[in-house]
Amino acid sequence: MTATLADRAAAYFNELQDRITAALERADGAQRFREDAWTRPGGGGGRTRVLAEGALFEKAGVNVSDVHGELGPEMAAALPGDGRAFRATGLSLVLHPRSPRVPTVHANVRHIQRGARSWFGGGTDLTPYYVVPADAAHFHRTLKTTCERHDPAFYPRFKRWCDAYFFLPHRGEPRGVGGIFFDYLGAGAEVVAGQPPPPEPSSPRESDAEAMFAFVRDVGDAFLPAYLPIVERRRGEAWSHRQRRWQLVRRGRYVEFNLIYDRGTVFGLRTDGRVESILMSLPPEARWEYAHAPEPGSPEAATLDAIRSHRDWASLEA
Amino acid sequence: MTATLADRAAAYFNELQDRITAALERADGAQRFREDAWTRPGGGGGRTRVLAEGALFEKAGVNVSDVHGELGPEMAAALPGDGRAFRATGLSLVLHPRSPRVPTVHANVRHIQRGARSWFGGGTDLTPYYVVPADAAHFHRTLKTTCERHDPAFYPRFKRWCDAYFFLPHRGEPRGVGGIFFDYLGAGAEVVAGQPPPPEPSSPRESDAEAMFAFVRDVGDAFLPAYLPIVERRRGEAWSHRQRRWQLVRRGRYVEFNLIYDRGTVFGLRTDGRVESILMSLPPEARWEYAHAPEPGSPEAATLDAIRSHRDWASLEA
Repeated sequence: MTATLADRAAAYFNELQDRITAALERADGAQRFREDAWTRPGGGGGRTRVLAEGALFEKAGVNVSDVHGELGPEMAAALPGDGRAFRATGLSLVLHPRSPRVPTVHANVRHIQRGARSWFGGGTDLTPYYVVPADAAHFHRTLKTTCERHDPAFYPRFKRWCDAYFFLPHRGEPRGVGGIFFDYLGAGAEVVAGQPPPPEPSSPRESDAEAMFAFVRDVGDAFLPAYLPIVERRRGEAWSHRQRRWQLVRRGRYVEFNLIYDRGTVFGLRTDGRVESILMSLPPEARWEYAHAPEPGSPEAATLDAIRSHRDWASLEA
Repeated sequence: MTATLADRAAAYFNELQDRITAALERADGAQRFREDAWTRPGGGGGRTRVLAEGALFEKAGVNVSDVHGELGPEMAAALPGDGRAFRATGLSLVLHPRSPRVPTVHANVRHIQRGARSWFGGGTDLTPYYVVPADAAHFHRTLKTTCERHDPAFYPRFKRWCDAYFFLPHRGEPRGVGGIFFDYLGAGAEVVAGQPPPPEPSSPRESDAEAMFAFVRDVGDAFLPAYLPIVERRRGEAWSHRQRRWQLVRRGRYVEFNLIYDRGTVFGLRTDGRVESILMSLPPEARWEYAHAPEPGSPEAATLDAIRSHRDWASLEA
């Protein structure tokens, strides 16, 4: 019996989870991941891994899931393809370091199948509390190099898609310094009503499912080299109560994005997903201060300016 | 020139804001409210008052607004009546005490006008971190007595409406011990597509706009006597780090409700409302711990049980 693309994708996501959690445990040095294996009443299940109150990470979640069954009407209306039968498998991670000098990061790779149609999606984005241009440049350059191995059109397209997706309209503010975001790769899927459209037409290569699986594996493998060097540069830096407070206010924005706009979160909660696995993305602690605004000329104000700039970080001089 | 019902309602809401903020400042004893008067580009404006880091209140917001103009398509589809011209005036408050022994509380009274149609809405609900049955009973009895001066059907109907509204479906959990919630009073309004329906048919008295203005004034006036005696009973009680932590986790649920489900918040953010005034409802600090569950038999577990009970608090033996 030959393994299907979904089977092979699921196997890759599981193996990637093992590799990433092992590396993050080594980086943390104090705490281990706790694993909760769960099954979904409608079919399938997952492994949620959370590391809490570590030396480096205040809260880190790295989840895989592989679920299947019948789409509810809400999901059916929002996804390409026909019929109710679906299978969705993927890895999703959000890391909240304790130090405000170390950026929060999110990454996700997934494979969705509906009826005869299937596609890959995912991305990764960096949310620093203090933007260090060289760090943002390292993150973006790693992703750009990864993308360019597959299609020269990918990086600029997926960076713009990321900038458009990880954005808080009510604040007029991006979530962080971005990264890449992509969806419907390998499907030849038309854009679906109710979904944010990709910012420009896709390239022909995107309809090749095997090529897109190779691309998604490459993105998954790029996560650790994109993020860990930034951690190693910043983790030793001292930080103050004032910087911690700024971090907590910025984490409040992260909560706003995830609960109001993030498709995975909103759909998950509205379609009886496993609440604790979905909300592992929320920070361990966050603050909301009325009309909070950084002092003009402060490092906090500089960070907001850098975040709002939508800069071409990958082209920054090293 | 005779004042319209909307004018008279706005004048009452302004006067109520003065009375409530004066009483809360006296209760706090350490901090005063800061006022931001703002104007809305499309028409009207408001006065946002926030007290932060007080002796009693970690964050307290008491806002009035009186806005008018043209409804956007999203709001037009969600409200009864015809045409685009609207005026909305109201008072909204959320108080987050520092002590986990003192409940968080929300209250809102409002008047909406669309074309020839207008109606009142509002309510108040209590969110204790540790449920003290006598306190929940006091809150509900005050509201029940207030309601019964106007219509014997109001309290049971509006309590059930509150229980249905302040509920987190993804947690299967009410926000707190409830209170009252009502809408479309004085409009003779049919229930609108996309809106949560009232739990049972309305009483004939509800189409009398003047009578409903009198009711809403009575609800507004009942807020301080419903809430402040609970504060006075609980503010002197000692609390521990463990209780503070539980409060922060429960406040995370408050954030989830407001950002995912609260109609005022979601509509406000999607229709270019004043962000800082809308989000003053969010707690100053909140926590999300993975798979947090209170120890069986603990006071925290007892509170969850009490919150989930949807009890008839007003009928509790004193």
